[in-house]
Amino acid sequence: MELFWSDNISGGTVVLDAEESAHCVRVLRHRAGDAISVIDGEGTLYACRLVVADARRAEAAVVDSQPRFGSHPYRLTMAVCPTKNIDRFEWFAEKATEVGVDVIAPVFGEHSERKVIKTERVRRIVLSAAKQSLKALIPAVPEPVSVLDFIASAPADALRLICYCDETLPREQRLSIKDALAGAPDDVCILIGPEGDFSPREVAAAFASGWKPVHLGPSRLRTETAALTAVTAVYLQKGL
Amino acid sequence: MELFWSDNISGGTVVLDAEESAHCVRVLRHRAGDAISVIDGEGTLYACRLVVADARRAEAAVVDSQPRFGSHPYRLTMAVCPTKNIDRFEWFAEKATEVGVDVIAPVFGEHSERKVIKTERVRRIVLSAAKQSLKALIPAVPEPVSVLDFIASAPADALRLICYCDETLPREQRLSIKDALAGAPDDVCILIGPEGDFSPREVAAAFASGWKPVHLGPSRLRTETAALTAVTAVYLQKGL
Repeated sequence: MELFWSDNISGGTVVLDAEESAHCVRVLRHRAGDAISVIDGEGTLYACRLVVADARRAEAAVVDSQPRFGSHPYRLTMAVCPTKNIDRFEWFAEKATEVGVDVIAPVFGEHSERKVIKTERVRRIVLSAAKQSLKALIPAVPEPVSVLDFIASAPADALRLICYCDETLPREQRLSIKDALAGAPDDVCILIGPEGDFSPREVAAAFASGWKPVHLGPSRLRTETAALTAVTAVYLQKGL
Repeated sequence: MELFWSDNISGGTVVLDAEESAHCVRVLRHRAGDAISVIDGEGTLYACRLVVADARRAEAAVVDSQPRFGSHPYRLTMAVCPTKNIDRFEWFAEKATEVGVDVIAPVFGEHSERKVIKTERVRRIVLSAAKQSLKALIPAVPEPVSVLDFIASAPADALRLICYCDETLPREQRLSIKDALAGAPDDVCILIGPEGDFSPREVAAAFASGWKPVHLGPSRLRTETAALTAVTAVYLQKGL
């Protein structure tokens, strides 16, 4: 099944943008009358019939709709400091979308070496990954904020976990992510630091705001591997 | 900590090969008397002192040794059909090594589009990933065999799981990987098929040999993402 995406769906009519129209009409050679599948990026799949096979502005009529198509039974926000080598962050964004995530929030820590990110490029990657893995919800990729701002703004009723391995913390405060997720709410927010780890000020702010420190086990994981391991932990615990 | 690798360790003396010697002496500029750390690739870390700082054949004296350095408390063999785009398989090999795996066995299915793989290249990738993630055990990468041969040769006392989603199987036979791993032995063998899935003959052979079919949940994962999700499931269940 090939999915198209549109943010212009109303009154039973779907309009594809220039890029999706070209792919639908020029590349895949769809003609008026063909059945096509369109996602709105917010969770709904529309079964449509192509009406105007214009390679710059294709139009289709909605035949049926299916909410929560390819959805997962949790809400996960992953806040991750972009890696020095941006390929590794983009790889994470693709794989996290496949497994199941709602928000991929790039955040910059006080110890981050990288302080810029092209969010538009990441959005294209997650759009493509969502279509490829048959999900109607495209993860949101907000503009980056600082780790301190992210810590302060995360909803207090979500399970908020900061992946941070401080050996000096008392053992009962160093839960594994698996134990932290057990019996927790289905709204989860996880924060992964930069290669240079969180600053003491960031850690103190997280603790003061009620974030729980968790570890990802004994393996020494790169930033992007740690982030995907956390997504997979949520998926395995709450999605299966 | 920078790790070197050697397969030439005996009588308290470590000899580095040409590549590792060049990296140690020419790139990192180690001199005789420097402390260096060497892994044997089989699980032991050796604390050494450099004796001969030769950029083609460096020699060091063993000061101390630490078995099971960076190890995990399970034994995992991942048999995976290499992807059409080999980058994706190599990416899996790197990430699986970081998370924790013992054997990465490339296997070719009857529906595999790709029928060749450069195992030497994959071995270099897992060597590099093991060093980077501070593990003294380098996953073995055997020469490829067919899926049918692999199914027949896997040890019967290991938990043998085939990731295969046949909706026609009775529900009680379609365990999630999480449930299949619960209470299972620590010796685990997991088989992941090609993009074109297993052939009926391969599935029948697996069932006849006592392999258990498992699913990885509702998300539609690419081959390499499915394989890493399976590694992560074992790591989270048995490694934390």
